[in-house]
Amino acid sequence: MVPPDPSSFEICSIGGNVATNAGGLCCVKYGITTDYVLGLEVVLSDGTAVRLGGPRLKDAAGLSLTKLFVGSEGTLGIITEVTLRLLPAQPPSSTLVATFASTRQATDAVLAITAALRPAMLEYMDRVSINAVEDMLHMGLDRDAAAMLLARSDSRHLAAELEMKSMVEACQAHGATEVLATDDPAEGEAFVVARRSAIPAVERRGTVLLEDVGVPLPKLPELVAGIEAIAAARAVTIALIAHVGDGNTHPLIVFDPADADAAARAQLAFGEVMDLAIRLDGTITGEHGVGRLKKAWLVD
Amino acid sequence: MVPPDPSSFEICSIGGNVATNAGGLCCVKYGITTDYVLGLEVVLSDGTAVRLGGPRLKDAAGLSLTKLFVGSEGTLGIITEVTLRLLPAQPPSSTLVATFASTRQATDAVLAITAALRPAMLEYMDRVSINAVEDMLHMGLDRDAAAMLLARSDSRHLAAELEMKSMVEACQAHGATEVLATDDPAEGEAFVVARRSAIPAVERRGTVLLEDVGVPLPKLPELVAGIEAIAAARAVTIALIAHVGDGNTHPLIVFDPADADAAARAQLAFGEVMDLAIRLDGTITGEHGVGRLKKAWLVD
Repeated sequence: MVPPDPSSFEICSIGGNVATNAGGLCCVKYGITTDYVLGLEVVLSDGTAVRLGGPRLKDAAGLSLTKLFVGSEGTLGIITEVTLRLLPAQPPSSTLVATFASTRQATDAVLAITAALRPAMLEYMDRVSINAVEDMLHMGLDRDAAAMLLARSDSRHLAAELEMKSMVEACQAHGATEVLATDDPAEGEAFVVARRSAIPAVERRGTVLLEDVGVPLPKLPELVAGIEAIAAARAVTIALIAHVGDGNTHPLIVFDPADADAAARAQLAFGEVMDLAIRLDGTITGEHGVGRLKKAWLVD
Repeated sequence: MVPPDPSSFEICSIGGNVATNAGGLCCVKYGITTDYVLGLEVVLSDGTAVRLGGPRLKDAAGLSLTKLFVGSEGTLGIITEVTLRLLPAQPPSSTLVATFASTRQATDAVLAITAALRPAMLEYMDRVSINAVEDMLHMGLDRDAAAMLLARSDSRHLAAELEMKSMVEACQAHGATEVLATDDPAEGEAFVVARRSAIPAVERRGTVLLEDVGVPLPKLPELVAGIEAIAAARAVTIALIAHVGDGNTHPLIVFDPADADAAARAQLAFGEVMDLAIRLDGTITGEHGVGRLKKAWLVD
């Protein structure tokens, strides 16, 4: 397997993953794309094809230009071949779903879980995204919950049971209103599909500005609270989904493009979310890259 | 824990680990130093202190200068602060020790093991290093074995049992003369101490040229056979220890410094081992870096 497991696995490409140093749903346990790139063929701006690294698990000879190209978004050259370090396939996972009456309880549960172990997945959806997904998939999600956590263990046998038990207890200790734990892969997968559907589901509600800010994990509660404050102050809808175990969040700012005032407020909120992340020692982009959209914020 | 676990943990420093992109005994499962470096403070040649990256598990903003500095051996600046991604502590390991009548059987067993799973450790000692360690530690190692494998599982409970069973069977299928499997941490640690003692033990036998070549894993048997051929052709003693699950080997070329002819043959063998690794699409240094010693070979 390629461990990071980008949420867009059905449409993304390995070359794009490497060019953006893509994250995904399993980074909380396994790390990010760059951790699995051993070698590249790259075509430079003058047309020269260059080989960097290669199929060696360790190579300390010379500067690591390979890793410099990972995440360079085409600015240094075009990636035409990738050699990845693969792992044996992930075993079937156990899955936990927990709902909370406040977002703070959910983020506190995240800090408790990650202090004890590394789940194979640790994802977050807020009320707006839960309701958007429920509108689309009709699977019985709790529309009243302030936040939902989705966690998985891909350890085996009793090891998985102990990880699940630890995560269930962390959620209960932080006031979860409901906790479901299952080792049925199909039942678990339904919730992962729900999480993967969040962006298209929210996009049904209007034009979306897709954010990708991240912070050091201990500052996650401040980031989530700060995003809620920005949504309130700017009177915009922000759906929050997150690879929450990485401190990497995707605030989705939703607005009606026909409403010029709403569009302007959404743009202001978009910048304020990045400013907030920077204030919290975070980053304007955890896994999507800078591109044209965030160029103006890169210097900060 | 810091997963790579350099063998020299008692004397090495984190700054040195990062400057050389150090490997270690647990890289076969967990990856290498660069995979755990999130941020650096670096002092450049003009005295400027620069911060690169930071305590964020994901950060795709801008070029990854952090990873460029990892393994740069002081050529770009001096590393003065490091932010590492840590993992929860490794649980106690189960340990397997297997001896083989031929080095080829041992390397074939390595390929079988790594095709099925990622052990937490997979180490190799040849007859010369086994005997050198036995002379020093008197622990009853098999002096007649051509090679010994040392493998560990740090999975939990039944998961560890299944990994151990798979590794025992791979060793037996490739003709192991003896296989010991234990979940007693103290018994297992004695063999890890033996492995860690190999370099000082071999150094008792003369001056050592410490090699660090690596190859793509499928070419491991060719590398080991080629090193044996070089030792025979140059009439020098080469002790072979290896992080064999990474394809990263440490041939230790031993010679009497008072014997000018032997010293010259040792130097020739030193270069020939690197040439061999390059021919096998390998590297002149897997984890120690280039330094002054290997500068002449870096271009190749």
